[in-house]
Amino acid sequence: MTDCIFCRLLAGQEPASFLYRDDACAAFMDIRPINPGHLVVVPVRHATHLADLGAKAAGQLMEVAHHMAAGLRASGLHCEGVNMLLADGEAAMQEVLHVHLHVFPRFRGDGFGLRFGPEHVHHRPDLEVSAARIRTALSHISSERH
Amino acid sequence: MTDCIFCRLLAGQEPASFLYRDDACAAFMDIRPINPGHLVVVPVRHATHLADLGAKAAGQLMEVAHHMAAGLRASGLHCEGVNMLLADGEAAMQEVLHVHLHVFPRFRGDGFGLRFGPEHVHHRPDLEVSAARIRTALSHISSERH
Repeated sequence: MTDCIFCRLLAGQEPASFLYRDDACAAFMDIRPINPGHLVVVPVRHATHLADLGAKAAGQLMEVAHHMAAGLRASGLHCEGVNMLLADGEAAMQEVLHVHLHVFPRFRGDGFGLRFGPEHVHHRPDLEVSAARIRTALSHISSERH
Repeated sequence: MTDCIFCRLLAGQEPASFLYRDDACAAFMDIRPINPGHLVVVPVRHATHLADLGAKAAGQLMEVAHHMAAGLRASGLHCEGVNMLLADGEAAMQEVLHVHLHVFPRFRGDGFGLRFGPEHVHHRPDLEVSAARIRTALSHISSERH
């Protein structure tokens, strides 16, 4: 028996409200919804972090999430907009260590929002410094896309 | 001249720090970064909302975002985790009306976080009620995946 709660849900060993399933991805309701209708899309095969999941597999998650967002908008649930959120790593608020893409409906006055840290003032030259570092890193990374 | 700031950036009519570009997608630095390294991935062809973008095109955004996340982690910028955020619709905090997927580095103590509205208590039967409505909606939506 795996320690991963999402793997247990996928194996039918824990209750879940499924919305979608194919060979690569599944979608089910989040047990602690931000708003009613909040769901997650996950890879069927366990991957702890994004780096454990290929780029193509990540793309498949988004294809399913796109479909789920259309479902939310057509469902009659309160949905004036949709947010998608992915947290990769505990420093990024990842709680379940199985990659998942949150998809949740939003409406005016729902109280959800972002809070920000101390203001960073960024001038265009600063952005270009960051960009140069990322471009250098990318030049050393092989990508499935290339 | 288009009113869309991202279309103008893509056309070279406004300055931007580009990280990536192919026929379908581009990535460049966010002008108001949550943390240094914050970037956005966008479709090259204008799409205001997710519904204006096909599922496959949404998947391509995520493939590029996956690659960018690897770049952030290897860049030497402060990056202990990565968040991705997509806002579809003004009620979901969409500010620029051209689909974009935020990708930003996170680190402990950066001060970024989520704030939640009034607590909704959801019991499993409530989740199943929401799920049933979404499944019914999905059954009436044609998807590129099916």
